[in-house]
Amino acid sequence: MNLKTTASSIALFLLLQSSYAQQKLSGFSSEHAQQQQDLEARFDKGLSAAAIGNNIRTLSAKQHYLGMPRDKWVAENILQQFKSYGWDAHLETYQVLFPTPKTRVLEASYPAGYKAVLKEPALKEDASTGQPDELPTYNAWSADGDVTGELVFVNYGLPEDYEYLERLGIDVKGKIVIAKYGRSWRGIKPKVAQEHGAIGTLIYSDPKDDGYYQGDVYPVGPYKSEYGVQRGSIMDMVIYPGDPLTPGVGATENAQRLERSAATNLLKIPVLPISYHDAAPLLAALEGPVAPDAWRGALPFTYHIGPGKAKVHLKLEFDWKMVPAYNVIATMKGSQFPDQWVIRGNHHDAWVYGAADPISGLSSLLEEAKAIGELAKNGYKPKRTLVYAAWDGEEPGLLGSTEWVEAHAAELQQKAVAYINSDGNSRGFLGVGGSHALEPFMGEIAKSITDPQTKVSIFERKQASDLVSAASTKAKKDILAKKDMTISALGSGSDYSSFLQHLGIPSLNVGFGGEGAGGEYHSIYDTYENYSRFKDPGFEYGVALSRLAGHAALRLADADVLPFDFRSLSKTINGYTTDLLSLAEQMRENTAVENQIISNNAYQLAGDVTKPLKAPVAKPEVPYIDFSKLQNALVALDKTAQHLQDARKPQLPAAQLEVLNKALYQAEQQLLHEQGLPNRAWYKHVIYAPGFYTGYGVKTMPGIREAIEQRRWKEAEEQIGIAATAINRLTDYLEKTFNSIRN
Amino acid sequence: MNLKTTASSIALFLLLQSSYAQQKLSGFSSEHAQQQQDLEARFDKGLSAAAIGNNIRTLSAKQHYLGMPRDKWVAENILQQFKSYGWDAHLETYQVLFPTPKTRVLEASYPAGYKAVLKEPALKEDASTGQPDELPTYNAWSADGDVTGELVFVNYGLPEDYEYLERLGIDVKGKIVIAKYGRSWRGIKPKVAQEHGAIGTLIYSDPKDDGYYQGDVYPVGPYKSEYGVQRGSIMDMVIYPGDPLTPGVGATENAQRLERSAATNLLKIPVLPISYHDAAPLLAALEGPVAPDAWRGALPFTYHIGPGKAKVHLKLEFDWKMVPAYNVIATMKGSQFPDQWVIRGNHHDAWVYGAADPISGLSSLLEEAKAIGELAKNGYKPKRTLVYAAWDGEEPGLLGSTEWVEAHAAELQQKAVAYINSDGNSRGFLGVGGSHALEPFMGEIAKSITDPQTKVSIFERKQASDLVSAASTKAKKDILAKKDMTISALGSGSDYSSFLQHLGIPSLNVGFGGEGAGGEYHSIYDTYENYSRFKDPGFEYGVALSRLAGHAALRLADADVLPFDFRSLSKTINGYTTDLLSLAEQMRENTAVENQIISNNAYQLAGDVTKPLKAPVAKPEVPYIDFSKLQNALVALDKTAQHLQDARKPQLPAAQLEVLNKALYQAEQQLLHEQGLPNRAWYKHVIYAPGFYTGYGVKTMPGIREAIEQRRWKEAEEQIGIAATAINRLTDYLEKTFNSIRN
Repeated sequence: MNLKTTASSIALFLLLQSSYAQQKLSGFSSEHAQQQQDLEARFDKGLSAAAIGNNIRTLSAKQHYLGMPRDKWVAENILQQFKSYGWDAHLETYQVLFPTPKTRVLEASYPAGYKAVLKEPALKEDASTGQPDELPTYNAWSADGDVTGELVFVNYGLPEDYEYLERLGIDVKGKIVIAKYGRSWRGIKPKVAQEHGAIGTLIYSDPKDDGYYQGDVYPVGPYKSEYGVQRGSIMDMVIYPGDPLTPGVGATENAQRLERSAATNLLKIPVLPISYHDAAPLLAALEGPVAPDAWRGALPFTYHIGPGKAKVHLKLEFDWKMVPAYNVIATMKGSQFPDQWVIRGNHHDAWVYGAADPISGLSSLLEEAKAIGELAKNGYKPKRTLVYAAWDGEEPGLLGSTEWVEAHAAELQQKAVAYINSDGNSRGFLGVGGSHALEPFMGEIAKSITDPQTKVSIFERKQASDLVSAASTKAKKDILAKKDMTISALGSGSDYSSFLQHLGIPSLNVGFGGEGAGGEYHSIYDTYENYSRFKDPGFEYGVALSRLAGHAALRLADADVLPFDFRSLSKTINGYTTDLLSLAEQMRENTAVENQIISNNAYQLAGDVTKPLKAPVAKPEVPYIDFSKLQNALVALDKTAQHLQDARKPQLPAAQLEVLNKALYQAEQQLLHEQGLPNRAWYKHVIYAPGFYTGYGVKTMPGIREAIEQRRWKEAEEQIGIAATAINRLTDYLEKTFNSIRN
Repeated sequence: MNLKTTASSIALFLLLQSSYAQQKLSGFSSEHAQQQQDLEARFDKGLSAAAIGNNIRTLSAKQHYLGMPRDKWVAENILQQFKSYGWDAHLETYQVLFPTPKTRVLEASYPAGYKAVLKEPALKEDASTGQPDELPTYNAWSADGDVTGELVFVNYGLPEDYEYLERLGIDVKGKIVIAKYGRSWRGIKPKVAQEHGAIGTLIYSDPKDDGYYQGDVYPVGPYKSEYGVQRGSIMDMVIYPGDPLTPGVGATENAQRLERSAATNLLKIPVLPISYHDAAPLLAALEGPVAPDAWRGALPFTYHIGPGKAKVHLKLEFDWKMVPAYNVIATMKGSQFPDQWVIRGNHHDAWVYGAADPISGLSSLLEEAKAIGELAKNGYKPKRTLVYAAWDGEEPGLLGSTEWVEAHAAELQQKAVAYINSDGNSRGFLGVGGSHALEPFMGEIAKSITDPQTKVSIFERKQASDLVSAASTKAKKDILAKKDMTISALGSGSDYSSFLQHLGIPSLNVGFGGEGAGGEYHSIYDTYENYSRFKDPGFEYGVALSRLAGHAALRLADADVLPFDFRSLSKTINGYTTDLLSLAEQMRENTAVENQIISNNAYQLAGDVTKPLKAPVAKPEVPYIDFSKLQNALVALDKTAQHLQDARKPQLPAAQLEVLNKALYQAEQQLLHEQGLPNRAWYKHVIYAPGFYTGYGVKTMPGIREAIEQRRWKEAEEQIGIAATAINRLTDYLEKTFNSIRN
């Protein structure tokens, strides 16, 4: 064996290696896989961390909330960028309602002279802060109101907190509640308060949750300082998101609009977010029972529940204006399938400067657009149409994306292959949520992208983090045994919602995080200065996001066979069903045991006479629920998904491929239930929805799960029927597809 | 059936009821059971809550720590009380070493001008506080020292905290550490600090643990205020308790004494307890990594681990005096078995006023003595001798009781039927710990005593509390199914230690608590004013304690057959063995998985580059351990315990009863291993010991458990052999006893 032979062997080895790598691009013939990998390599070379940083700096330099001139300036800047990169781009404008504050008063009779500051101070260490006319701290969609009442501390303001208040004999009717930010989407807190008869809600940021308890505060570290306030929407978007006046339809100039009072996603009570500086004197003045351990924060006094001597006066008035929401839509037409759209989006509006939220994610998106533009200048033509979007009005309630989706619903259900969303991005670990038929696809991509810090794949780094943070040895063993990536289910909180949950368009939400924690969210301190010190100093995770989302978009645009794998969906729904069975089983056992404890009088006997606490009320026993329809539906789906997977090959004839691909990307629409979820018809997907009492947090198989959680047994069985019907519809649809490509 | 018949039936029914009640007094013939119950009813009538309150007020009116004149005054007051109740009483005095502070300086270069206050202020709301010459705040047995060094925060100062420091690359060698009170006995903290090379230790009370985080602070509520300090001993009493100069022998006038430097239970570094007022500036000045969540307290700043700019100067000097410890010993001679002693004790010395600790428990004991004295005046003579004791010098390290036990060791091993201990008492739930052969006996008593607040039995109330606070539905179901009382195992922290763990005398520790939580422990605020507001306002739990301990003492004194049931002991040891098996199994699995995670490099990959944290070091795999000797020993014990239980009847002839009873109460001595535990020969019991790294907290089957926990596998198997031998010795002993009463 001479040297030459050895060299040949090495070459062969490298070739095998590379062909092995090709096999990882599912949906591509091996020739096309090689081309696609070359394309991605060129795409990657077009990405610049510095350029991402520059965009973050430029677009977050001044505040740019929905409806203000700078918001339009940002939209037009983005528009120009798209155009300069060679994209066909335009603004698409909707007219939406958007309240901004006119009057904000929070004062109290006790402690004497109390008047809330309601203002975040400028910091000399952060030159961005303190610009003129910063948007005051407020919760958008609070009702106008002028109320005075006693104050009650309600922990995070969730239903279980009110159950505990009831045991204490404390009623919030006619009172103002003060809740901590955290544990749920903020809009849940005033909604539950309103359900319990409260006349107003204060939401404050306890230093336990994102302030000094967590770490050094800004500007020393990234955490929330004394006066920091989280702005944010409290629209009840689990009913429907988007413009409250135009549910289900695009908020075009001439759309038919509801009266504001008829909008079912607007609350009736005034709501104000405050800093812990403003909250502390009110909390310290509360009397009544000491708050239980889980309710206590990090302020240096004993947390009482109230009420106390303080009568609190809350007066809020808003300017309820119609404003234009400027979506920027850029397209690059598909060479083979122009009517198949791969959509990629990130919002551009911010509460104030919004360097992290949303500009960091947006800048990655723009960088992708730039790199794809360069590919195009060098001859690249995507097979399918790429649609890159920068949404306006996400912060007040996903307004821009929702109105666009509603306006284009029919066309999107025909054409949209998938929607890939991002939002704020930071250092850390890969996060992917979305449609589970895309789970293996995203796993392939995640295994092929290198983590900027550790130089292993972002998949491997995420798995390492899962391993280290897993709570039990059993969980660690499960992770060690796992070879594939798991993606999470999507609730709400960013612009994928209408695509996925209203139209059934396969959706993904991608980003990095976990090492960029801080307290700047929705405050004036979400600045370039802050971002570039604490979130992603070298903007390398910005590049990683561009690669992640860009490769996904390009592969979807160019795949011979679209990389949907319904075995993953089937497996995932099976898992959810197992969860639901065990949820019902546990509730049954817990209820039986708890009722026995109640009937034994144990709560009274265990109680401290100096701390009166009623026993919980016994709950009706949990019946056995018939899951069989669902279980049978899943057996069928499982089989069909396997058939189809075996049959879907890039080598199929073009005509069959075209039929197959369209069927694959439209399949998820079979999981829509036209009448939607109980009491919130806008949400039509039977597998994914935001929780009625969690907000951002997802409820998988929401119709069934929420019925069980809220002990509506008849509804649970109805919802099982609805889900089974939808799954059977999907199975039939996939089986038909399978037959059509076999024949 | 006429009315008369009906009345007879009712009478019969009542008789049956009453005879059923009699059967609950195991160890008594039914005739004697009735007599005993009558006796107990008369005893109960002799108890007065007001008298208990008066004793608490009188004996805690001035400070009375070991060695000061008031300590002697208290002993003499108790002596006079015993005498006045008709007991034969005397002082038994030992000469013990006891250091009090001469110099206490804590200062720092940063923050500038820092000098610790080291003084608890008087409160106008509590007239007891602020008397002249209150004992300064200090930790007894701290070394003299004058050290200057950087400061490192070590959480609770336990071995696992230092493992984490090692991962951070922070070494305490040559530094001063600051640890929080809590999670372990205080003496563990400086011991572990010294093991790691620290030159001094500060221990502070974080408001999270017993201050404002828990509830309103004194005098508004019972929790620890800004300047409150916990005094206390840091003698390494898990090596041996009692006078450090006379291990194993009574500290009589002429006892042979060690040089102080040769006492292996004294640490070499200076140690000072401080308030959070004094700790906060030092903690706030720390730099370095942010402390992990579990380390953080409730002070309003970010907890860093250090070190920082501060150099801390700690200078401590003590007056190492020999002082007299006055035990008060009162006896009431047994009419039938004067050489069988039922011993009841509670200490009388306090750190300052000590209303709760120890005077509340002591006052219940005195009330028992009074009521028994009244019974005696009316003709009652206990069959066995009652010995009521008030120990001195418990606070610095169980000095009085240990020296008495060591001085009388041989006699006690012959004569002591059981030792019943109490200490501070408060409102709440029954607590019983001790020798498990007495578990059913204590269960009977607990079921017959009424809880002052709820009027159900103290057993039932405890079970209700266990039910409500159980962490899982499974645990709740287990409790619901449970009919018998479980007693806990004893570690250390009060005067039972030498009886049980050094001599193998059956011991019990009894009291109430759980609703009297506060922050007064070992501070100047443990006063009558505090006690009577927060701990046991009507002193009714004082009466309940008198009933509980008094009934136990009287039943043990009068029983025909002593109520030892070795089936309970056997069952308990079986349970511990199952725990140990599962501990080894879990360690094996955890070690394997953790080592795999470490070898996967997951810690490095999951780590944040801005927060360097080394991976844990891989640990040797856990071998399979041979438990068979122990398991076989338990099978045999189980059988014999059942034989004996079947045979032990009050109807046995007197001579056999006498043999049986003596054998029963001496049986537990068979569980002593003469060479004691590894490196701490004073602790001889193979089932119960305080943990080497927990202090007060018990380690059951300590030789085996600590060997496994500390990964000394060979030692674990040796200790299994030692435990098995001891258990076999007990089995043989019981079998011999069984044979002797059969023949």
